[in-house]
Amino acid sequence: MKIDWRRNNSLTNFFFNCSSCDLELRVVIEDFLDKKLQNILNVKAEKLNEAIEKGIIKFFEFHGHPALQFKKGIGKIEDGTLIYFRDKIEVIRGFPKIRRTLMLFPTLKNHFKGKIVVEEKMNGYNVRIASIGDEIVALTRRGYMCPYTTKKAVEILDLSQFFNDNPDLVICGEMVGTNNPYVSHYYEEIGNLGFRVFDIRKKTSNDPLSINKKQEILNKYNLPGVRVFGTFNVNEAPEKIKEVIKEISEAKREGIVIKDPDMEILPLKYTSSCAHDYEISYAFTYPFDFGKDFFFSRVIREGFQAFEMKENDEELRERALRLGESILLPMVSTIKNVASGKQATEDMTIDVASPEEVEEFLRHLHNLGVYAVIEKFEDNKAIIRRIHQSTTDKITNLLNGGLY
Amino acid sequence: MKIDWRRNNSLTNFFFNCSSCDLELRVVIEDFLDKKLQNILNVKAEKLNEAIEKGIIKFFEFHGHPALQFKKGIGKIEDGTLIYFRDKIEVIRGFPKIRRTLMLFPTLKNHFKGKIVVEEKMNGYNVRIASIGDEIVALTRRGYMCPYTTKKAVEILDLSQFFNDNPDLVICGEMVGTNNPYVSHYYEEIGNLGFRVFDIRKKTSNDPLSINKKQEILNKYNLPGVRVFGTFNVNEAPEKIKEVIKEISEAKREGIVIKDPDMEILPLKYTSSCAHDYEISYAFTYPFDFGKDFFFSRVIREGFQAFEMKENDEELRERALRLGESILLPMVSTIKNVASGKQATEDMTIDVASPEEVEEFLRHLHNLGVYAVIEKFEDNKAIIRRIHQSTTDKITNLLNGGLY
Repeated sequence: MKIDWRRNNSLTNFFFNCSSCDLELRVVIEDFLDKKLQNILNVKAEKLNEAIEKGIIKFFEFHGHPALQFKKGIGKIEDGTLIYFRDKIEVIRGFPKIRRTLMLFPTLKNHFKGKIVVEEKMNGYNVRIASIGDEIVALTRRGYMCPYTTKKAVEILDLSQFFNDNPDLVICGEMVGTNNPYVSHYYEEIGNLGFRVFDIRKKTSNDPLSINKKQEILNKYNLPGVRVFGTFNVNEAPEKIKEVIKEISEAKREGIVIKDPDMEILPLKYTSSCAHDYEISYAFTYPFDFGKDFFFSRVIREGFQAFEMKENDEELRERALRLGESILLPMVSTIKNVASGKQATEDMTIDVASPEEVEEFLRHLHNLGVYAVIEKFEDNKAIIRRIHQSTTDKITNLLNGGLY
Repeated sequence: MKIDWRRNNSLTNFFFNCSSCDLELRVVIEDFLDKKLQNILNVKAEKLNEAIEKGIIKFFEFHGHPALQFKKGIGKIEDGTLIYFRDKIEVIRGFPKIRRTLMLFPTLKNHFKGKIVVEEKMNGYNVRIASIGDEIVALTRRGYMCPYTTKKAVEILDLSQFFNDNPDLVICGEMVGTNNPYVSHYYEEIGNLGFRVFDIRKKTSNDPLSINKKQEILNKYNLPGVRVFGTFNVNEAPEKIKEVIKEISEAKREGIVIKDPDMEILPLKYTSSCAHDYEISYAFTYPFDFGKDFFFSRVIREGFQAFEMKENDEELRERALRLGESILLPMVSTIKNVASGKQATEDMTIDVASPEEVEEFLRHLHNLGVYAVIEKFEDNKAIIRRIHQSTTDKITNLLNGGLY
C-alpha cells in the first residue's frame, strides 16, 4: 500500500503535530502501513488505503505515541479496532457484534451443535482492557480510551499479574452499576460500579478463549466473570432458557448470551421483556432524540417472545400494559417537565477524585459528540447533566402551537 | 415552455399511442403547455418542463382523451392534480394536505381568529368528484380515477343536477363503510358504503366555498355532508373539542377537522385516541410492511393528548393498556398465523355487478402497485385479498431460525 501523504489530510496533520513522530518512527509506520498491516489484518491494501483517505482509519496520538482507530469495520476487521505503535505494534481488535435471535427454537438447534453455555448479558457498557507498553487501557466499544473507565478498571480489578503473564490477551467485559456515566443500572451485587468479564480474546486475531480456558484464567487471577446459568444440550436449551429469561426479567435484568463451549461458533444474544421495556422507556423519556430508532426492534422482540412463551390472554395483557406504560408514561412526564420550563435532561453520577478528572471526562464526552455539563461536584462525586436538545426543542415548539 | 419532445419519453409514447391525438389536438396541447399552463397554475415554465422530463407530470389517455397527472406537488400545485383536455381544458386540483395539531391550546388561538367550525373527520378515503365533459369521475387522493369509486359515487349520490348547475365545482368528501376497498371501517349510519362531503372547491383555483355556502348547496342538492359539531369561539374551542374528541373516541370514530367559517385560513386536524390505536393495530397486523412508519407519529399524538387532557394515573394506565394491546395483540396474532403456514393477508369486500368489474378494479390496484387477488366472487360481492409479502417473508424467516 503506497500512501499518498499529500492527499491524506488527517495523516499529514498527524505527522505535523505528533510529538513523538521523528523520522525513524515515520519510516517504521510507513513501512508497516505499506507492507505489514494488510497481512496482519488480512485486508487488501487498496481497501486500507481507501479507508485512510476517507477518515475511516483515523490517526491519533496517545500518551506520546502514534495510534490508529478504525471508526468503521473494514473487511473482517471490526469497528473500534485500535493499533498502537510502541516498542512493538499492538492490535486490539474491536469487540465483534453479537447477533440476536428472536426465537430460541429452532434457532439454537440450527446455529449451535451439541452443547451451549448460557451466560448473563448485563446492562452496562462494553469495555476491552489491554496492556499497551507499560500502561493498562480500557477501551469503549467504538475504540475510545475512556479516562474514567481506565481509572476505575484498575481500581476495581487487580490486573497487573494477569497482564504480566498474558500481555497478548484482552479482557472483554461489562462495566456496570449506578455510577456509570454511559448506562446507569442498579445491580444488587454491584452497587456503584463493578466489572464483569465475559470474554478473553487474543490481540491481533481476536480469537476468544474457550469457556473452560476463560474460567480457568478468571479463577487463577481472581477476576469476576459474568453469571453462568449452565451448560445445556442444544435440544433442551429453549425450555431451560425460557425459565432463565423469566427469572431474569422478574429480577429486572437484561438477558443472556448463548455460547458454543469452544467459542468456535459465533454467540447469540436473547433479552428479557423487562429489558425491552426499560429501553423503550428510556427512548420515550427523550422521544425526539431516541424514540424512532429504539422502538421498532424492541417491540418486535416482545411480539416473538410472547408468541414463543405461548402466553395466555392474561399474560399478553400484562405484557401489553407494561409495553404501553413504557411508551406513554415517560413521554407524558417529559412533556410535563418541558411545559413547566425545564429541559429534557439526563443526570449521570461518577466517582472522581478531582475537578480535573471531571473536566477530562467531559472532554472525552465532547469528543464523542455528547453535549453534557457539570451539574454538581461534591464529596468526590460529580453529577454530569446531558441535555437532549431535539426533545426539548420539539416539545417546546409543539406546546407553543407548532403544527406536526 | 418549449418541450423537447424527443427527450421526453412518456410524452413521445403518449402521442404515439393516443388514439385521439390528431395533429390539431397536438397543436392545442403544445400551445397550452407552452403558453397557458404556467399562467393558469402560476408555476414557472422551467419547473413544469423539468417535472415533465422527470415524469412528475405524467401524460395518459382517459376515455379517448389526453390528460395530465401530477404525481408530486410542484410549487403551489398539489400532487394528485389532474388536467383533462376535452372541448375545454379542465384542471382538478389535488386535495390540499391538512396540517395536524397535537395541542388544542394554544394552537387554535394562534392559528385561527374569532370563530371556528368543527366538522367530523371520517375514516375512509379522500375522493374528489367532478364532471369532465359529459362524464362524472371520482378521483382518489393521488389523482387516479378509481372505477369502483366512480361507479359507486353516482349510485350513492344524485349528482346530475348539481353538475348541470355547477360544472366548475368539485365535490370533496370521504368514501366510507365496510365495503370499501381501501379503508374498511364500520359506521352505524353508513353500513356498506356511503359518501360524506366535507368541502366544495372550485376547479383550477382550488378555492373552497365558505362553510355557509357549502351547506346551502348541500341542502339545495340534497347531498350528505359530514357531521358538524358546531361553531365555537376560538377561546372556548379547546374545552369543547376535548369533550367532542372523548365522545368520538368512545364511539370508535376518527377525529375532527377544525375550519375557519370563511375557509380563508387553512384547516387543522385532530384525532381521537381510538383512531391512533386503530391505526397502530393495523400497522402491527403487518409489522414488517407498516409497523415502522406508522408507529412513531401516532404514539407522539397519544403523549400530547394524554398531557393536554390532564389524565390521572388511572386514565393514563387505561390509555397505556390500549396502546400496548394495539401493538402486541395483532402482531402475536399474525406471528401465529404465519407459524401455522398462512400468509399475512388482508381481505376487502366490494360490491360489483360482474367479474369484469372486479378485474377492472384489480387492474387499477395493480397500477397503484398493490398486489391483490380475487379470493371469492359471489352474489355481486367480491372478496379481494391483499398479500403483505414483507411481513409474511420476514416472520417466516425469523420463525425458521433467521437472526435479527
